[in-house]
Amino acid sequence: MSQAHEIAERLSWVAVDWGSSNLRAWALDARGEVLARTDSDRGMLTLTPEAYEAELLRVIGDWLPATGRKPVRICGMAGARQGWREAAYLPVPTRLDDLARGAVAPPLDDPRLEVALLPGLCQTAEGAFDVMRGEETQLAGLVAREPGFTGLACLPGTHAKWARLEAGAVTRFTTCLTGELYRLLARQSVLKHSIGDDDLMDPGCREAFLAAVHEIQAAPATYTARLFGLRAQDLLDTGLPTGEARGARLAARLSGLTIGLELAGMGDELGDELADAGPVTLIGNAALCERYALALEALGHTSRHLDGEAAVLAGLGLAHHGLAARR
Amino acid sequence: MSQAHEIAERLSWVAVDWGSSNLRAWALDARGEVLARTDSDRGMLTLTPEAYEAELLRVIGDWLPATGRKPVRICGMAGARQGWREAAYLPVPTRLDDLARGAVAPPLDDPRLEVALLPGLCQTAEGAFDVMRGEETQLAGLVAREPGFTGLACLPGTHAKWARLEAGAVTRFTTCLTGELYRLLARQSVLKHSIGDDDLMDPGCREAFLAAVHEIQAAPATYTARLFGLRAQDLLDTGLPTGEARGARLAARLSGLTIGLELAGMGDELGDELADAGPVTLIGNAALCERYALALEALGHTSRHLDGEAAVLAGLGLAHHGLAARR
Repeated sequence: MSQAHEIAERLSWVAVDWGSSNLRAWALDARGEVLARTDSDRGMLTLTPEAYEAELLRVIGDWLPATGRKPVRICGMAGARQGWREAAYLPVPTRLDDLARGAVAPPLDDPRLEVALLPGLCQTAEGAFDVMRGEETQLAGLVAREPGFTGLACLPGTHAKWARLEAGAVTRFTTCLTGELYRLLARQSVLKHSIGDDDLMDPGCREAFLAAVHEIQAAPATYTARLFGLRAQDLLDTGLPTGEARGARLAARLSGLTIGLELAGMGDELGDELADAGPVTLIGNAALCERYALALEALGHTSRHLDGEAAVLAGLGLAHHGLAARR
Repeated sequence: MSQAHEIAERLSWVAVDWGSSNLRAWALDARGEVLARTDSDRGMLTLTPEAYEAELLRVIGDWLPATGRKPVRICGMAGARQGWREAAYLPVPTRLDDLARGAVAPPLDDPRLEVALLPGLCQTAEGAFDVMRGEETQLAGLVAREPGFTGLACLPGTHAKWARLEAGAVTRFTTCLTGELYRLLARQSVLKHSIGDDDLMDPGCREAFLAAVHEIQAAPATYTARLFGLRAQDLLDTGLPTGEARGARLAARLSGLTIGLELAGMGDELGDELADAGPVTLIGNAALCERYALALEALGHTSRHLDGEAAVLAGLGLAHHGLAARR
């Protein structure tokens, strides 16, 4: 990484992923090389529309040269209705190399900034209403790396996204509340007394995770009963290890039940496509993607991993070039 | 209801349902007539073992005559390991007219009290670990009213219980985390921005509830995707009413999905038994039981209702007589 004056000298544009609760920003040169990276814990949930410009300047101001105007490309919740300014959802099917067509420019005071907020995607088919905002840019990153990509992508997380891509366009997508459901159950339900932190490198945890994936695949409707079963298993003398090992084992089981329910549902929705579309491209952090890869493998599906941060940066780059081409 | 001196004069015994977060107590005469009823918001979660006797005296002390010893029969979490004193779970199958055999007496200072804490039930069959504490006494109330009862009972609630009874004994039971899951999702997840309060007397809510029950019955694995769909349906212009009516409609849908998932799971577990065992006896408060009755009816099953408070009181009465017979 470079000194401030060196960054300002070489800066070509700024990439920003601005979500509900934080932002990440990158300074890039004309060849797309990352000169600097920074972040902040102020996101949509804690900012009024008037506060965005000042926060952006606070975070990236040091990178900007004294004169001249620099492009800033922003994806995520900053473009939501409750964000800086709304960049309306583009309905699917949408080509991911053309997110720029839905970009909007917020009002600005500082003459050094030229900001574009990228749009999210929506799906309005009856019975399949869905939205994403931020993940489309990670998917665009996949297309930036593999133009015309066709296949299935999954972005695990709080609200896990599954997308079908055809020739570089999202044709359909589905969001599962999986990560949020896990966290609520593990931290705020009666199960919080039983659930610890798991480690899938531990053979006992791994076995508990995979057994749960298989069980819920075979009988998805029994999910709520199996949830309480975790509590009962902890209260009764059921041959589990004690202490932290028990909490870890039960956490692995809860994770397997919850991710397994998502995979069973996507299996229902996708049918043969899940098997036929080639490996699922998992986009996100390595540990969570590894967990999904294990579960998919247990169900007979292959996958590959694309780093989430690399993906969003590549997607913002694609949009940046798209916006430049529109000038 | 009677004056304090009149209660003390006629008092035969005291019935108490003492749960995690509250207690309800009834003063009864020798014929089982309720002389008085009271409650408190202090339950297991806020009491140490040493604090129970004082709390009990604070709540029912006015009912006790100056001399003589009165039986107090207590069910619920006061008998848990973290409660007043543990009344160990009885393993199923267990005859419900003989819960008294598992009762324990806590240490007492006041000579006017003779206390029995009733046991809960446990199930230790591999893959079907489960526990209940408090609900067994409501089930005993069903058996008190209909000796030798055989059939299915369901107690909707935070942790909904389904029990198979044969000749007045619980032979198997299953707990579903349904009520807790609904509350977490409606009040603490991203859905809290969309979910209001429903009213199943409203035709729009009723329709949304029943449609959700059918949808999840047909495809239970899609539960987590349908959860996020509620949020998307609210964000997109999907023909829903606005304002409170929208929040009500989405609440009814969330309720239908969550109760529907429980019913689909019980259908899997019970198979033909759900259809063949006669009407499901729903035990609990009228509004929640009516909701379950609607969902069951939509799936082709009949049900009948037994008031939850009447059931627990009848069950405590059965245990009281059982304890008297053991003397």
